Amino acid sequence: MMYDCIIIGSGPAGISAALTLQANKKEFLLFGSEELSQKIVKAETIHNYPGLTDVSGKEFCAALKAQLSAAKITVKTEKVAGVYALKEKFSVMTQAGEAYEAKTVILACGVESVKQIEGEETYLGRGVSYCATCDGFLYKNKTIAVICTTKALEHEIGYLADLAKKVYLIPMYKEVEIDRENVTLIRKMPVKIDGEMRVKNLTFADSPTEEIPSVLPIDGVFMLRDCVSPAVLVGGLEMQEGHVVVSRDMSTNLKGCFAAGDCTGRPYQYAKAAGEGNVAAHSVCAFLK
Amino acid sequence: MMYDCIIIGSGPAGISAALTLQANKKEFLLFGSEELSQKIVKAETIHNYPGLTDVSGKEFCAALKAQLSAAKITVKTEKVAGVYALKEKFSVMTQAGEAYEAKTVILACGVESVKQIEGEETYLGRGVSYCATCDGFLYKNKTIAVICTTKALEHEIGYLADLAKKVYLIPMYKEVEIDRENVTLIRKMPVKIDGEMRVKNLTFADSPTEEIPSVLPIDGVFMLRDCVSPAVLVGGLEMQEGHVVVSRDMSTNLKGCFAAGDCTGRPYQYAKAAGEGNVAAHSVCAFLK
Repeated sequence: MMYDCIIIGSGPAGISAALTLQANKKEFLLFGSEELSQKIVKAETIHNYPGLTDVSGKEFCAALKAQLSAAKITVKTEKVAGVYALKEKFSVMTQAGEAYEAKTVILACGVESVKQIEGEETYLGRGVSYCATCDGFLYKNKTIAVICTTKALEHEIGYLADLAKKVYLIPMYKEVEIDRENVTLIRKMPVKIDGEMRVKNLTFADSPTEEIPSVLPIDGVFMLRDCVSPAVLVGGLEMQEGHVVVSRDMSTNLKGCFAAGDCTGRPYQYAKAAGEGNVAAHSVCAFLK
Repeated sequence: MMYDCIIIGSGPAGISAALTLQANKKEFLLFGSEELSQKIVKAETIHNYPGLTDVSGKEFCAALKAQLSAAKITVKTEKVAGVYALKEKFSVMTQAGEAYEAKTVILACGVESVKQIEGEETYLGRGVSYCATCDGFLYKNKTIAVICTTKALEHEIGYLADLAKKVYLIPMYKEVEIDRENVTLIRKMPVKIDGEMRVKNLTFADSPTEEIPSVLPIDGVFMLRDCVSPAVLVGGLEMQEGHVVVSRDMSTNLKGCFAAGDCTGRPYQYAKAAGEGNVAAHSVCAFLK
């Protein structure tokens, strides 16, 4: 089936786009997570979202969930691995290997609050991976490092530990539950990914522990993050200082590809995101004509 | 007193800007109307505003009022007559003749849903006026036409009827309550304002009634509208097809003057307006630094 639009991201931008596409009777998919947005859930009180007085992040999320449900919109929780711009259509691949086609795409995938590590982009596809299920098999019986930003992705660490000989886990959250013989915890962030043709070492400012050297030999690094940079998701997308370049109608440099919310730049605000999602959806409707 | 910002308009764009300026501890004035926005009040059900499921226009307005009150923001209901860009500041004049100064301005005055009449712009200031209390005295004992879009402005018709010899009233609402000997109702819209140096005639497609000719001699025309075109409000403002030209940060061609909401263009949507108000307020904060 060919959808009118695929929305990637279930924060206020993606939801706003979905509500407007639904009101305009378009066929679309909304990819996101069950909790809609980790950032919102964690927000304390929101003081400046028009219409909701001093709501907590959890209340806002609950309101959005109720609204999606009332509008009969479901969130697909499969992770998106890549978006491919084909001739007059887009193919959206999930990490599970499914492909979905649509005439347009709205990127509403947020911004990664965690900085990239030096060498990350250089070695992407040559030892650096963002997807455990896509690339895990390449590291059977090898030594890998896994940098994981959220507990929600811990099952992917388990999957990698089943395959690899040795896993150095660098978690960016507190309560690590994974307990495997071949997984060693490191509570320091690396400063650099190094190598030649492929990744060879992960470098720390100092030795993380007595047993682990500051230059740690590895075969690969997995970066398991909440949200992936739109540039990584969509090849050829024009970016500027980490943000998708958009016009006032939220169109990007790729025809039929629109963006909305934090991924388009500051201010990182719910009202802005909701507004841009709305505009992007209207632009999709105009584009489909 | 010199304010950080003056916001003109109390729809979702203006309110969004106000909430964000308040959260950023700025000193500002919010000009608008008691009902906040006539357009919203009249809206039936709003299906696509994220966070509020299928609210009526009245409910949305009530929520916004409650939020303003919780944030201790008051709406100044004096009508704004003009905004003057001075050296590194703005002077905002009200129809009552008060002047307020601010370092920045956010125009959130909506769009006029009523079309301009041919000749309106040509004769602005030469027989065409938007402000009864500003220009009424010029028409003492003269014959004028008053085109009024909303019952909320009926008191201004009364003011004009006290001054003028004869008033032809063309109301765009149903229940006209004004009852004066010198006021004659016309239930047809004129097609053209004509004259030489100054306005001379109001032209209708056909005679509106047996007594009133299709070319009606008058000395002036008052256009009493809910919202005035931003171009009329602010001299030198760059417009395109009836909308204020803005960048992604909601800045206009006038330094320190920002715009948000319907006045910046389609889609005319609450979420877009709220988002743009938020962005404009952040841009004001950045500008003040």
